[in-house]
Amino acid sequence: MTANTTDINNNLAPELQVSAWFNTAQPLTLAALRGKVVVLHAFQMLCPGCVQFGTPQTQRMFDEFDPDRVAVIGLHTVFENHAVMGRDALEVFVREYRLRFPIGIDKHEEGQPKGIPMTMRAYRMQGTPSLLLIDKAGRLRLHKFGHVSDLMLGLWVGTLLPEEIDLAAVAASAARTPDAGAACNADRCSG
Amino acid sequence: MTANTTDINNNLAPELQVSAWFNTAQPLTLAALRGKVVVLHAFQMLCPGCVQFGTPQTQRMFDEFDPDRVAVIGLHTVFENHAVMGRDALEVFVREYRLRFPIGIDKHEEGQPKGIPMTMRAYRMQGTPSLLLIDKAGRLRLHKFGHVSDLMLGLWVGTLLPEEIDLAAVAASAARTPDAGAACNADRCSG
Amino acid sequence: MTANTTDINNNLAPELQVSAWFNTAQPLTLAALRGKVVVLHAFQMLCPGCVQFGTPQTQRMFDEFDPDRVAVIGLHTVFENHAVMGRDALEVFVREYRLRFPIGIDKHEEGQPKGIPMTMRAYRMQGTPSLLLIDKAGRLRLHKFGHVSDLMLGLWVGTLLPEEIDLAAVAASAARTPDAGAACNADRCSG
Amino acid sequence: MTANTTDINNNLAPELQVSAWFNTAQPLTLAALRGKVVVLHAFQMLCPGCVQFGTPQTQRMFDEFDPDRVAVIGLHTVFENHAVMGRDALEVFVREYRLRFPIGIDKHEEGQPKGIPMTMRAYRMQGTPSLLLIDKAGRLRLHKFGHVSDLMLGLWVGTLLPEEIDLAAVAASAARTPDAGAACNADRCSG
Repeated sequence: MTANTTDINNNLAPELQVSAWFNTAQPLTLAALRGKVVVLHAFQMLCPGCVQFGTPQTQRMFDEFDPDRVAVIGLHTVFENHAVMGRDALEVFVREYRLRFPIGIDKHEEGQPKGIPMTMRAYRMQGTPSLLLIDKAGRLRLHKFGHVSDLMLGLWVGTLLPEEIDLAAVAASAARTPDAGAACNADRCSG
Repeated sequence: MTANTTDINNNLAPELQVSAWFNTAQPLTLAALRGKVVVLHAFQMLCPGCVQFGTPQTQRMFDEFDPDRVAVIGLHTVFENHAVMGRDALEVFVREYRLRFPIGIDKHEEGQPKGIPMTMRAYRMQGTPSLLLIDKAGRLRLHKFGHVSDLMLGLWVGTLLPEEIDLAAVAASAARTPDAGAACNADRCSG
Repeated sequence: MTANTTDINNNLAPELQVSAWFNTAQPLTLAALRGKVVVLHAFQMLCPGCVQFGTPQTQRMFDEFDPDRVAVIGLHTVFENHAVMGRDALEVFVREYRLRFPIGIDKHEEGQPKGIPMTMRAYRMQGTPSLLLIDKAGRLRLHKFGHVSDLMLGLWVGTLLPEEIDLAAVAASAARTPDAGAACNADRCSG
Repeated sequence: MTANTTDINNNLAPELQVSAWFNTAQPLTLAALRGKVVVLHAFQMLCPGCVQFGTPQTQRMFDEFDPDRVAVIGLHTVFENHAVMGRDALEVFVREYRLRFPIGIDKHEEGQPKGIPMTMRAYRMQGTPSLLLIDKAGRLRLHKFGHVSDLMLGLWVGTLLPEEIDLAAVAASAARTPDAGAACNADRCSG
């Protein structure tokens, strides 16, 4: 984990450098997302740890968190095997895996051989998956390489939501989560 | 879900009524836990939704959350099949399942036939599993019957942690979570 | 694993000693099941490895295998904590977990303090869960203590089915298994 | 499911048409595999149902089944999105996902626009994943499109193994399967 909070906390997180977007009508910028917590999932479509854990987790965040408070964004940060993870391959991947959250392609410098893309370089990411949490003021608050549990991820996002939050309303937004229903009441157990 | 925040928010959550404790040297009270967020998991040892989802989730919270900020407690709220879920049966269950978080047995009124136990009644719980979140000031902030996702549970707990929290330190406490390690860096993918 | 095939293969497997049955109108005997492969899952209701792996696996076998060819049976072999795993506790367990396969309670010798029950002793089982496979002629063919993968368990049962089996018909019986449906055809991927 | 046993059972299964192999020093042919049961997993690297279920299941078969009796083979049957699932992309996929079973690329007819590849066409597969079981005599015995449970798959493979099989030896080969160890014996429960 790299959480260089002393360096970073008082500065704005670097802006996203994206060459193309999926699942959004408008290009997204951190500047325009001020006022929301931003969760950024940096991944590669042929990284098993991304496909098996990080990307489904990001889809769950997109499905469960209140979109008025939390912006959930994917960033395709290809730093290897460029030939087989281009825009056309990603488009198939996004469609076949039915990903619905906005996904940007991290931009490569023009006129250069492809290496580490620009946003990945600006944040000095170590690899994929990487998680970035950016607060409502646009500051990078957490940067983690590798797998994160749902519990800790939820807790971290929660701590960035305003203290005056109405928990009852937050809870209501969870109604979109299908209830496993495996529960017992006075009549019976179900599940 | 019942989140009667208008009724409850300004009042203290009812105190726990417990006849015996496991996994704690001292009996626990909400009064003594002021200053921490309290997560209370009400369960029965023969409720499948508890054993398969809620109780392992509670164990994960106990393992992952910072114990100086979040108190994770189980409450055995037996409201049916009393003969086979007594103290001796629970003791075997706690040992065999290797549960390590503190667990109290919700008290039954003395001199009465066993029905709904006292804490369960005071909170008007609908069944098991039930989740209660109590803030640092001792107020009930969320009350939910049934299954809750790790993401939303983490988020709810996070919103009750103080706004001045040092995320880097919170993140460091996650080091106790085993990292799945399924990740790619410049050298290779692992996992 | 104990697979004492030299001792056992030419002899009949010891008969079940059962004090009570659930989920069957008639008591079951190995003698009456000649002509079917018998899969016997010996378990205890407070054994986590049983509840989390073995018992759900047994339920899946009961749901997926052709009942005209394979008899799937549970045996509650309580050898410890007798006071909290009696008949009344098991009855609640079977009902709450919605187990549908026949389950017998391994008999204890009358007039003796409870120890290892009679069937468990006759088979010299090491603990729970234990798996026994008995062929169509009534001979014990496999005896394994601990967890077994679904693939190997299916393979072992398959090798005991008659060679003249009509695979197409076997396959048709799999239609009862809900198809995950996560598949791609010429039109689209689903799942 | 298509199990055209009346048409197919007495005829040899069509030979594999493969343009390149991974994870095998020698090209594989059904002809050379006579005497073993062949399990063939037809998949595409960007088919989610393959990557999430079928391909890991195939890896488990390769790890658990006795290679002297059962040949487990993957076949990359690309019938769509050809540009992004070529040999170079598959090579990355096989390496990153650490697949160890032999995988052939189903051949396309030369001098034609790419469509359904030759082996896929010969077997009239409906899509991916598809499972083919070929007996020791080289006959197609089962053909199924979509997801199959481990239990039924194991059972089907088992029924094709010779009746004289020594179950104790088969069982011993399972020793390679890591034992979950979640079991109770006279001393304690573990897991």
